[in-house]
Amino acid sequence: MENTNLKTPADFLQKILGKPVYVRLHSGIYYKGTLACLDGYMNIALENTEELYEGKVTNSYGDAFIRGNNVLYISPA
Amino acid sequence: MENTNLKTPADFLQKILGKPVYVRLHSGIYYKGTLACLDGYMNIALENTEELYEGKVTNSYGDAFIRGNNVLYISPA
Amino acid sequence: MENTNLKTPADFLQKILGKPVYVRLHSGIYYKGTLACLDGYMNIALENTEELYEGKVTNSYGDAFIRGNNVLYISPA
Amino acid sequence: MENTNLKTPADFLQKILGKPVYVRLHSGIYYKGTLACLDGYMNIALENTEELYEGKVTNSYGDAFIRGNNVLYISPA
Amino acid sequence: MENTNLKTPADFLQKILGKPVYVRLHSGIYYKGTLACLDGYMNIALENTEELYEGKVTNSYGDAFIRGNNVLYISPA
Amino acid sequence: MENTNLKTPADFLQKILGKPVYVRLHSGIYYKGTLACLDGYMNIALENTEELYEGKVTNSYGDAFIRGNNVLYISPA
Amino acid sequence: MENTNLKTPADFLQKILGKPVYVRLHSGIYYKGTLACLDGYMNIALENTEELYEGKVTNSYGDAFIRGNNVLYISPA
Repeated sequence: MENTNLKTPADFLQKILGKPVYVRLHSGIYYKGTLACLDGYMNIALENTEELYEGKVTNSYGDAFIRGNNVLYISPA
Repeated sequence: MENTNLKTPADFLQKILGKPVYVRLHSGIYYKGTLACLDGYMNIALENTEELYEGKVTNSYGDAFIRGNNVLYISPA
Repeated sequence: MENTNLKTPADFLQKILGKPVYVRLHSGIYYKGTLACLDGYMNIALENTEELYEGKVTNSYGDAFIRGNNVLYISPA
Repeated sequence: MENTNLKTPADFLQKILGKPVYVRLHSGIYYKGTLACLDGYMNIALENTEELYEGKVTNSYGDAFIRGNNVLYISPA
Repeated sequence: MENTNLKTPADFLQKILGKPVYVRLHSGIYYKGTLACLDGYMNIALENTEELYEGKVTNSYGDAFIRGNNVLYISPA
Repeated sequence: MENTNLKTPADFLQKILGKPVYVRLHSGIYYKGTLACLDGYMNIALENTEELYEGKVTNSYGDAFIRGNNVLYISPA
Repeated sequence: MENTNLKTPADFLQKILGKPVYVRLHSGIYYKGTLACLDGYMNIALENTEELYEGKVTNSYGDAFIRGNNVLYISPA
């Protein structure tokens, strides 16, 4: 995290808007896509979305809206 | 997502109102139907609804009201 | 959904008050009955209620109060 | 539900106060008893309470306080 | 419940303060002890606490604080 | 509980601050440590923390912050 | 915890900002990384993050945002 004066996790997320990310859900499913936007509930809109399970692409959606309460973590791809 | 000045996930969802969508629930069940409307809790009303499990249509309802807390993601069909 | 100027899912539900509905719970159990009333938490009062599991009637209660957080979806029967 | 001008599920529940009811929990356990009182969280106080599982009485408590978030449905016995 | 003008479940619980109770949790574990006090979240402080599973005492703690969201029911011992 | 004019469970917990406690989680894991402090959500900071499973020490951390929603009960060690 | 005038768990967490920590999730997965920042919901931003399962590194992300409701505990590494 080059810019170390990030105060809150929300600052962290703002920094990776528009960038490719991995979103892992509780269920172990990963989504890879461009982080278009997100809100305070961690609801996420992804673009060019791929669904991965155990490293293999199982589906692709283009745009996808993911409900925040399912999210385990988000990290830059 | 052609229109890239979408600010929040809610903007994303507004753009696909009236269009065919997939709604995936925690349980792995999919619903395919026309997104009639939704509210802030992600409660969803679908029209011409089909229930799919592992790619096969297992049921169809016409209209269906889906309670938001079950929703994993929504994506354009 | 003949009347397409339904704004929110609550409008959808108001339209099917007094009509026969299916209520599916997380657990896969269905209830079929007349939708007497419901509130903002999706708590539901049904009349002439039948409980179904895998398509067979397993119980009938007449009136039944179902707590909203268990509801997966509601659709006209 | 003889009196059909019940507006909300709470009206429904008020009508069966003091009467024998079945309370089914998520876990499939039933409680049969007299509905002494309940509050807005669906916390329930029962009198002359019997616990049933798969139709057989497995326990009896006299009075019992059941926490609302466990309740699946309530119906007149 | 001798005193039948109990209005809410909280009244019920106040009546059994200082008395021996069973507290059953979601997990099927029972605690038997004296109900010292409880709060609006159903957090419970018990004295002379025994833990029972399938009718056998598996542990005893003296005092124990039980977090409310785990509680299934409370009944006089 | 020697001092019986404890009004709420929070009073109970204040009395055992700075003392060795067991903290049992939903998952059956126990933590033994000194109760350094806790807040209204039952978030807990322990010092000299040991993790136990089925009576055996499986890990030790020194300090540990435990998120309240995982806590089943807390009792003096 | 050298400085024993820590009043709340939040004070505890502030003291380990910028330091290596273990974050254990409900699922048994551990994350090891530098605690960059966290908020009131226990949402966590980690730097130089490694994912461990049963003691072995299964993944590494550099930065990672972990949603608070999944966190079991946090302890200094």
